[in-house]
Amino acid sequence: MLTPAEFHALHRPGSPILLPNAWDLASARWLAAAGHRAIGTTSLGIAVGAGKRDGAGEIAAESLALALEAARHGIALSVDLEAGFSDDPDEVGRFVAELAAIGCIGVNIEDSTPAGELVDVELAAAKVAAIAAAAPRLYLNARTDGYWIDADDDADRRLDEAAARADRYLAAGASGVFVPGVLDPATISALVGAVEAPLNVLVQPDLPISRLAELGVARVSTGSLLFRTALGSISAAVEAIAGGRGGASVQPAVPLEVPSYPDVAGLPPAAR
Amino acid sequence: MLTPAEFHALHRPGSPILLPNAWDLASARWLAAAGHRAIGTTSLGIAVGAGKRDGAGEIAAESLALALEAARHGIALSVDLEAGFSDDPDEVGRFVAELAAIGCIGVNIEDSTPAGELVDVELAAAKVAAIAAAAPRLYLNARTDGYWIDADDDADRRLDEAAARADRYLAAGASGVFVPGVLDPATISALVGAVEAPLNVLVQPDLPISRLAELGVARVSTGSLLFRTALGSISAAVEAIAGGRGGASVQPAVPLEVPSYPDVAGLPPAAR
Repeated sequence: MLTPAEFHALHRPGSPILLPNAWDLASARWLAAAGHRAIGTTSLGIAVGAGKRDGAGEIAAESLALALEAARHGIALSVDLEAGFSDDPDEVGRFVAELAAIGCIGVNIEDSTPAGELVDVELAAAKVAAIAAAAPRLYLNARTDGYWIDADDDADRRLDEAAARADRYLAAGASGVFVPGVLDPATISALVGAVEAPLNVLVQPDLPISRLAELGVARVSTGSLLFRTALGSISAAVEAIAGGRGGASVQPAVPLEVPSYPDVAGLPPAAR
Repeated sequence: MLTPAEFHALHRPGSPILLPNAWDLASARWLAAAGHRAIGTTSLGIAVGAGKRDGAGEIAAESLALALEAARHGIALSVDLEAGFSDDPDEVGRFVAELAAIGCIGVNIEDSTPAGELVDVELAAAKVAAIAAAAPRLYLNARTDGYWIDADDDADRRLDEAAARADRYLAAGASGVFVPGVLDPATISALVGAVEAPLNVLVQPDLPISRLAELGVARVSTGSLLFRTALGSISAAVEAIAGGRGGASVQPAVPLEVPSYPDVAGLPPAAR
């Protein structure tokens, strides 16, 4: 099983690790069996599977349970903490210490609210510092969400904000910085230049991994893409069956329609 | 939410219900949102997601938990009991009474062991009788596994055995009979003729639903197919990404390779 130190070493600018994100033990086992030595989690998948809201700090117990099961199966997991599941940095630190004791290799913490606003940088940095103190060996990926939530903002201001937040989180003890969103090559290049640590981006619609490597990215995450792909594939398979295509040949319709984030996050909630 | 009586009524020979099988709350919610009024479960998916063995009677708690969550989400579930999770018919009856109280609309019980042997027909019938007594409103689907496990057996003997077991289970109170396996049209036709109740088969490799309808089938299940399709789709998506195909266009490789049952059931187990 991969150690946190080995996971750190896999973050090589120019030769990024592709980190697929699982949402349950089945997907984690499947990805591990396919040879992925490190696996992330996707909060969307865990939340939908728990009947809870994504990004709302509701899935601490489910994330811990998945970490325990993954460890029992020898799977090295980096856990998405959303915004830490708490606004008390000590509580965030204690939670991550538990993950480290279980055998997790990393965590991800984000700096925006479910309402789509950046949180106070000092609160976010305090959580990063608490994690770094409580679990110093883990790879601590600090996610800053300016590009994710302010798609229409001024480009220079957005870059400055992301760089400033990245600096603050790195000073607080982060191992690397994650900037989610759809980014153009110039922006990725600017971020690589501005961030003095490994840069993590999402899989990009129009940029293959080889291009992200050339731009200096150190880690590429799939985010919720695999979870949404799985849901899309079962819709497509059922439609193919219902539409009269037979079974060894029950191939999902091609091209596969991968549901959007709102399609999945907006599934009907439980009865109160 | 579909009632058990409405679920009974949807088993129409010649106009089969397509029952997709979910393995967790996410897949159940997704299928329900797509318009499926009744959803089955697949023991393979639940077992793999729980780090347990399929068909070994180990997932009673997980099946109950899924039933509870599905009910909270207004999803009408027919639960795969494997062989009842117990060889004590009273215990099987009590378990199904719990499912009925939660709001489940049906159950499935099978008559073979994980080692691939048919169990004593009287024990299997006693479990069916205990379920029928404990939860008389549920749709009780009795699965007989002769075709599934004895692929090389003599065809006439196999049909006689299936028909005799079907009779016995129907006399004990089953609502319908499920014969899994790959079946040719003549066999399906013979089974429809021999079984005096709605016949359930799996999605067939070479027979579209319309052909199964013509043959008189009343219900078509996807078994573990959707679960395996989902796993196949995430492998294909990761391979597409790693192979350099970009993201809005991150389409799984086509055709999608759906992993076999042994590929999935044989994932590495947890450390002891």
